Amino acid sequence: MSIRVSVIGATGYSGGELLSILARHPHVELAGVFSGKSGKTVPFETLHPSLGGKKGPTTVPYSHDAVIASRPDVVFLATPAEVSAEVAPLLIRDGVRVIDISGAFRLKSAAEFQKWYGFALPDPSLLEEAVYAVTELCGRELSSASLVANPGCYPTSVVLALKPVMQFVDVAGGIICDSASGVSGAGRQSSEAYSFCELATNFKAYNIGRHKHEPEMRQALGLAADSDFVFAAHLLPVIRGILTTIHVKLKPGADAAAMTAAYGAAYRDKTFIRVHPAGKLPELKDVAVTPRADIGFSILPDGKRAVIVSAIDNMLKGAASQAIQNMNVMFGLKETEGLA
Amino acid sequence: MSIRVSVIGATGYSGGELLSILARHPHVELAGVFSGKSGKTVPFETLHPSLGGKKGPTTVPYSHDAVIASRPDVVFLATPAEVSAEVAPLLIRDGVRVIDISGAFRLKSAAEFQKWYGFALPDPSLLEEAVYAVTELCGRELSSASLVANPGCYPTSVVLALKPVMQFVDVAGGIICDSASGVSGAGRQSSEAYSFCELATNFKAYNIGRHKHEPEMRQALGLAADSDFVFAAHLLPVIRGILTTIHVKLKPGADAAAMTAAYGAAYRDKTFIRVHPAGKLPELKDVAVTPRADIGFSILPDGKRAVIVSAIDNMLKGAASQAIQNMNVMFGLKETEGLA
Amino acid sequence: MSIRVSVIGATGYSGGELLSILARHPHVELAGVFSGKSGKTVPFETLHPSLGGKKGPTTVPYSHDAVIASRPDVVFLATPAEVSAEVAPLLIRDGVRVIDISGAFRLKSAAEFQKWYGFALPDPSLLEEAVYAVTELCGRELSSASLVANPGCYPTSVVLALKPVMQFVDVAGGIICDSASGVSGAGRQSSEAYSFCELATNFKAYNIGRHKHEPEMRQALGLAADSDFVFAAHLLPVIRGILTTIHVKLKPGADAAAMTAAYGAAYRDKTFIRVHPAGKLPELKDVAVTPRADIGFSILPDGKRAVIVSAIDNMLKGAASQAIQNMNVMFGLKETEGLA
Amino acid sequence: MSIRVSVIGATGYSGGELLSILARHPHVELAGVFSGKSGKTVPFETLHPSLGGKKGPTTVPYSHDAVIASRPDVVFLATPAEVSAEVAPLLIRDGVRVIDISGAFRLKSAAEFQKWYGFALPDPSLLEEAVYAVTELCGRELSSASLVANPGCYPTSVVLALKPVMQFVDVAGGIICDSASGVSGAGRQSSEAYSFCELATNFKAYNIGRHKHEPEMRQALGLAADSDFVFAAHLLPVIRGILTTIHVKLKPGADAAAMTAAYGAAYRDKTFIRVHPAGKLPELKDVAVTPRADIGFSILPDGKRAVIVSAIDNMLKGAASQAIQNMNVMFGLKETEGLA
Repeated sequence: MSIRVSVIGATGYSGGELLSILARHPHVELAGVFSGKSGKTVPFETLHPSLGGKKGPTTVPYSHDAVIASRPDVVFLATPAEVSAEVAPLLIRDGVRVIDISGAFRLKSAAEFQKWYGFALPDPSLLEEAVYAVTELCGRELSSASLVANPGCYPTSVVLALKPVMQFVDVAGGIICDSASGVSGAGRQSSEAYSFCELATNFKAYNIGRHKHEPEMRQALGLAADSDFVFAAHLLPVIRGILTTIHVKLKPGADAAAMTAAYGAAYRDKTFIRVHPAGKLPELKDVAVTPRADIGFSILPDGKRAVIVSAIDNMLKGAASQAIQNMNVMFGLKETEGLA
Repeated sequence: MSIRVSVIGATGYSGGELLSILARHPHVELAGVFSGKSGKTVPFETLHPSLGGKKGPTTVPYSHDAVIASRPDVVFLATPAEVSAEVAPLLIRDGVRVIDISGAFRLKSAAEFQKWYGFALPDPSLLEEAVYAVTELCGRELSSASLVANPGCYPTSVVLALKPVMQFVDVAGGIICDSASGVSGAGRQSSEAYSFCELATNFKAYNIGRHKHEPEMRQALGLAADSDFVFAAHLLPVIRGILTTIHVKLKPGADAAAMTAAYGAAYRDKTFIRVHPAGKLPELKDVAVTPRADIGFSILPDGKRAVIVSAIDNMLKGAASQAIQNMNVMFGLKETEGLA
Repeated sequence: MSIRVSVIGATGYSGGELLSILARHPHVELAGVFSGKSGKTVPFETLHPSLGGKKGPTTVPYSHDAVIASRPDVVFLATPAEVSAEVAPLLIRDGVRVIDISGAFRLKSAAEFQKWYGFALPDPSLLEEAVYAVTELCGRELSSASLVANPGCYPTSVVLALKPVMQFVDVAGGIICDSASGVSGAGRQSSEAYSFCELATNFKAYNIGRHKHEPEMRQALGLAADSDFVFAAHLLPVIRGILTTIHVKLKPGADAAAMTAAYGAAYRDKTFIRVHPAGKLPELKDVAVTPRADIGFSILPDGKRAVIVSAIDNMLKGAASQAIQNMNVMFGLKETEGLA
Repeated sequence: MSIRVSVIGATGYSGGELLSILARHPHVELAGVFSGKSGKTVPFETLHPSLGGKKGPTTVPYSHDAVIASRPDVVFLATPAEVSAEVAPLLIRDGVRVIDISGAFRLKSAAEFQKWYGFALPDPSLLEEAVYAVTELCGRELSSASLVANPGCYPTSVVLALKPVMQFVDVAGGIICDSASGVSGAGRQSSEAYSFCELATNFKAYNIGRHKHEPEMRQALGLAADSDFVFAAHLLPVIRGILTTIHVKLKPGADAAAMTAAYGAAYRDKTFIRVHPAGKLPELKDVAVTPRADIGFSILPDGKRAVIVSAIDNMLKGAASQAIQNMNVMFGLKETEGLA
């Protein structure tokens, strides 16, 4: 079996990671590779260093007709939300399945979307149809999805860590998430703020209270808009990876054994999720350049709180490899195909 | 005026930073420089790269008699807590003032000390006498102190940020401190865990719920042992600096203006504390290799919470330069002498 | 077809890289995994982070009988030269083919070996038999080799860059090689010299005139022991990769076109060698975490000199992936099997 | 005594380093601080993080009249060569002494200048008048200079290492200089090529055979334009520092003792130059954030060659602190004033 795959937004870091995986996926045929509308024409081998020595279609500027002409079974959008918002409806109307790596279709409420993203979606009806897919937490809806909203990198790290144990969390006691990301999370950048000299020995918090990824977390965790949930993003002086430290108050009766059991029930047969024994916490280096998520937790000495830590590669489980997992499920392949 | 200063524990990173400042301090005469009991004899210029080209006493192994023979007005202890606990009482008995950079005399309760440090102090009566000195938050007691407990690096970053605004904090709502430190905080290390390859692209939390610096923070903030206060230390892939992100619930009526005013009242005339305007947060690079602390905060959109961030150089404001500030006050000098 | 492979020295960085590749090689069955003689017993999944989620034999302490009992077709030695020197003869006597990643069998002269390595080989007769295998430069002798001396990381970067163009080099004019390596080249380390704080913002030359890898380069390039060849190793503040800058005087008539043609003749059909057009030089990041070597050169304005630069991942093309290339050739597989 | 100093080009990295030193120099009064012609107006304290807490003149856009109105004894130009070339003649005509950190006045030949810099100097007669000042190698001409050409960062590292031992070098045998610089050498950058993700784990050579700093080295070493001298610049993944590895053939009779003596004669009483004993080589970290240069060398085993290594901070000895050394000499102060 071979899936015909096209990619739009091939020149960014996420596009590069996607192509690198697709180029070695045993059941994928790369049908077309597209840059932005006024993008460049670039031979496959020179598009990204990681593609050196591999063969594939030349990257050409995007047009809807050119994408359709590549006869794709599925199209990956590694484009800004503004572009995905325009491009996806056209593809879906023409019967092509879409996996969108941007934030364009992650929220269910058009009003919330406009509030956080600052523009209105051309076709908000797609919000209902889109399947928000942290792969390991999805059910059958993913198999038949025509539009997959691939989760953000920070939300993947938060939702994977919290969702299976939300039953033990005293939400009124506050949920605090301090996340730290590698710089590649910001994509290719040509501003002084992202220059080596400004970041190489630096660490800082940013976008407190107004990070676009926050509403997506509340929604995925089933939290009301006014619940006491805090997300604080930080920028690490590394290229890859996200480590998230989550602080929760536990409901009476919750303990390490119960949490371990809940994680086990959720992830026991999931190849890419590793849950550490209670008290052992993940490290960023263990997941960098892998499609895995590592999760661990410590119960504080008084038994009333837990500190939960998760680690992922922001470019892979936080973007490209999770998109491939989702594609695998959509087309009936083994979830790990092309990734293990 | 010239203060005769001796240093014990000269070979570690903190000792190196101390000597580097002392060697250029206009009112200091370096009286003696000592390594551990079975330590090495090392010429001043080759003890630390930062001392290259400067003149000073040769480092010799510690003995109490040798220190006394150096006729110091004050002795800095850049030694492990176990060593400070033994050495300080002897010096004080002989009328020498002591500034201890270790944790030996930071807690007021001998029982708490033994619980967190794992050994009993030879002379617990000194706990009462010791002045715990975050310089900018001390009163007259510092001027006449015979024993100064120099605060830990993490506590300095937490206490400077929280103390002036504790009146606005709903303590029952939980205080969460996620701190990230550069690797020099662990001192000179020769274990694989601190090797370049294990840390260079890594980030991790450690010692959750059992970090020695935690009781010192509760004590300095006036928090009961069972109050809802969480401190989580993380290890950054940089050499220097601590950035701490603190999450608090605000009491009704507290707002940005009130917090700004409170910080202003505390720090307006403090050269080494810079408080940013509300909404602007500090960055690690701005304080690295300086004696300064930068503090900032954001009120979350619903007005119910604040995120407070502080940044210091762990080796300077978190250890050596704060020790010098304390010495300056003890001897009636301008607090910033030798540091600006 | 399935090759039974055992590995000795599994706990080091090179061992980890080897196992990571072997575990996904389509024609390899991992027969046995061994640590040092008094080594640890470690489950496969926890031996290295990169093996998380993969299945394989538990690592057990080495004994010759245990290795033989694993019935290997080939054994990889990721052991220090002293260990390889003892272990290899026993295996070969028992009919097992050996690929040695250490320097034990790279030199042809037992006297040279003793001079540079500081000890005598138990069985120097193996030096003659061993095939020194920079894969792309080997002929048929590799297919039938019973003992392969896998080249050192620095020599791989130098020999790949120089060998095809030695005909154009005026050897009497001096050949200068300045190489810079990531820290993983030193293997797992628990000394202060390799701690994060000592290396993170550092760069230095080391072992000038006495680096063990130097005689191997001269031998592979056919240079006399007294020819004017200089190799200077440097330590970069990165984990992975070697970049080598080579300075040569050109013979009259040599030019960019001739050099390009010579590289093309040597490497045209070699998947893992990429030669840039004249004037474009390789960068370390393009080869990190790949089995590739990138090579480029610039002719200086006066036409009399060339600067040749090569880049490899020291752990892969400089060790583990080249060892797998060599195994593939030894067993008649496609050279790139399990690596592309 | 107080020197009135103005600075043009205050917003760049070099300008920041300069101001940071000037602000604490005991004999300097900051008269005026200027950005580019259409530059910004910035309060002193917020111009650079390192100036936080210090007082000084507000930065205003440059105009010749405004500079003159600041009544400076000396003006530092931390401007691009194109700007320095225009600004310096006006200042000198008005009797103001100038220290230029750019390359505008470093070469003696106007033709060479145009060839390497790509434009013609408005007033080439100043080339003759300008004093090229590696401070420790200058004689009396510096004291009375009206225009000082502050050396480039790479040339400082090469010339300090080679000049005192040129008498032992067989120039015909070739002089090879491989230099590696931290990223701050490129100044403030807002291009993708200097972004964190492109450089953080990278190392590369650049501008081979066409680096502007090369003719300056030949000139300072007294080498003919066609002598066999090679300079290869490399970009290190650190912010600060240059380490240069130099390969030379020795004349018969030259040995370690002779070289040590020659370095001693040149630098014995120079505070900021440290020459290591033969065989010990400098490391980048020992000079970072210092005004020092460290120099070392190894004689190769056959005695025919030496490898000489030097290390400096590119922003200090390679730019700002050397400029201050030069100012000190010009105004009859101790060379180390404000720097030790």
